[in-house]
Amino acid sequence: MIDISKLTAQKAHMIDREIEKVFPKNGLKNLDDAVWYHLGTGGKRLRPILSIVTYEALGGKDQKILPFAASCEILHNWLLIHDDIEDGDEVRRDKPAVWKKYGLAHGINVGDYMAQKVFELILSSDVDNEKKFHLIDSMVKTSIRTAEGQTMDINLRENNSPEEKDYLDMVTDKTAHYLTVCMVGAAVVAEREEIIPKLIKFGSEIGPAFQIADDILDLTVGKGRKEIGRDVKEGKRSILAIHCLGKCSDGEAEKLLKILNKLPEDTTDEEVSEVKRLFEKHGSIDYAREKAEKMKQEALETVKTLPEELHEILEFFADYLISRKR
Amino acid sequence: MIDISKLTAQKAHMIDREIEKVFPKNGLKNLDDAVWYHLGTGGKRLRPILSIVTYEALGGKDQKILPFAASCEILHNWLLIHDDIEDGDEVRRDKPAVWKKYGLAHGINVGDYMAQKVFELILSSDVDNEKKFHLIDSMVKTSIRTAEGQTMDINLRENNSPEEKDYLDMVTDKTAHYLTVCMVGAAVVAEREEIIPKLIKFGSEIGPAFQIADDILDLTVGKGRKEIGRDVKEGKRSILAIHCLGKCSDGEAEKLLKILNKLPEDTTDEEVSEVKRLFEKHGSIDYAREKAEKMKQEALETVKTLPEELHEILEFFADYLISRKR
Repeated sequence: MIDISKLTAQKAHMIDREIEKVFPKNGLKNLDDAVWYHLGTGGKRLRPILSIVTYEALGGKDQKILPFAASCEILHNWLLIHDDIEDGDEVRRDKPAVWKKYGLAHGINVGDYMAQKVFELILSSDVDNEKKFHLIDSMVKTSIRTAEGQTMDINLRENNSPEEKDYLDMVTDKTAHYLTVCMVGAAVVAEREEIIPKLIKFGSEIGPAFQIADDILDLTVGKGRKEIGRDVKEGKRSILAIHCLGKCSDGEAEKLLKILNKLPEDTTDEEVSEVKRLFEKHGSIDYAREKAEKMKQEALETVKTLPEELHEILEFFADYLISRKR
Repeated sequence: MIDISKLTAQKAHMIDREIEKVFPKNGLKNLDDAVWYHLGTGGKRLRPILSIVTYEALGGKDQKILPFAASCEILHNWLLIHDDIEDGDEVRRDKPAVWKKYGLAHGINVGDYMAQKVFELILSSDVDNEKKFHLIDSMVKTSIRTAEGQTMDINLRENNSPEEKDYLDMVTDKTAHYLTVCMVGAAVVAEREEIIPKLIKFGSEIGPAFQIADDILDLTVGKGRKEIGRDVKEGKRSILAIHCLGKCSDGEAEKLLKILNKLPEDTTDEEVSEVKRLFEKHGSIDYAREKAEKMKQEALETVKTLPEELHEILEFFADYLISRKR
């Protein structure tokens, strides 16, 4: 049985050692220390682990995947650092967000620095130039799509009649691609390019499902913060909000939008509870759960079309990403 | 005689056409339109022109340098977009800065998007993989150094006894490398890698001199803004401030630091004039001019060691970058 905490325990050390190669522990004040501060707030190293185990399942026995795997973790983390600024989030994993601790200017610059280190890591890989290009090209395309998804996410918060399709397009761009790229990179390094289209299909099914699970977690246990309902405060057009708006009365919709459209700092916990009650009343949480489950089932069907050696780990990840409790 | 406005008139169209390939004119709202808004505020396209004319002087007769040259312009502009946020600058080239017009969240995201488009442009170049690899590697190293320089710049603003060496290290990292990379890329595409070390030497001399000229312009005509003394308001440890602090009395130093350390919005124009008077009294502006001139002369000596076909254009740029009036 695969177990995420065992995988983290096994692989985290290798990943962090790779990251240390490009972020000196005694580097520039307010730069490298800020990177390590952020990385030290936790995180499950999910993406590099997905990359490594995919590579190993494809027969990779060496360490050639490590720089790329580490670059996936750095990509994820610089996106978080900039996201926290963009969303006005002052807390990340129960600690002050980088921009709160180091100031806005350093916060932006630290993210920019890490975004370049993604490529420094890939360039340092012990693979031939053809593969390096493919890895860089995949990472560039992914990062562009992610920025487009972020634009769609911000734009959607000003939309008072959002549709589920807008949401699914947005999360596919914002979340799915940069989950998928971890597996794509593994296929490139393992010289199994022929399976990439199916990995992308799997990622495009499991990625949005992962984000839906995240939307639900925000209202139940909070997303790595003690705060419940942060998405509601930020006015995110989550799948819950979109479903509820489609089901509720005009009066309820007006109330819901009024709360969503308030500034985060002006939204009270009582208002979050009110929104949650509306979601429950109209079955929006159940709907989201079913939607995620359905997409997971589709992803599991896609897994069956992939080489057998990938089945166990991809089935595990599909399940873990959707069913995780935090 | 080379003339910058003629060069701009000749080359700007080619550069913009290249940029249009990666930023669709009808792209995502608050993303591609924000890029074009920013690019439309002006700018002399100095860096891509430097890249193109270097390539042409080295014998390049085709258009293979264009994607890289365009990528230099995009690099410059995303740095400006993020810099404006980091410095709290609300105005860029007499128009609202991107973050003021589109909001902070989009402002950060637009810069992140453009940073990736730098690589999309390079990857689209019609050159062999070996050269692409070299171009990407140079761009990544440059961008990392630039982020380090930005950290040093922000850190220096909290230093009440800054030294000239700190300043020169900072501007070399923050400004010189990404001016130099334009010429380095031209040498790579023109297959003249052997001259790169000397181009880097030239850039490391002319880059800081260019920044010193900029420091002076800020106090005389303003840097692309109607506002004079923005650097003073932002508390920048310019070479003027550092020289003055080394020459003035303890009382004057206290006064100078008090003004520099105020928040930009709390610094009055009268205080800026007071600082300017202190700089004049202690000969700091003349000192900076002489320093820039001396570095320019060193750069011109370096030009003599480069192939003759580069002399005219590099001499022109050395002179233009230091002697420009705005």
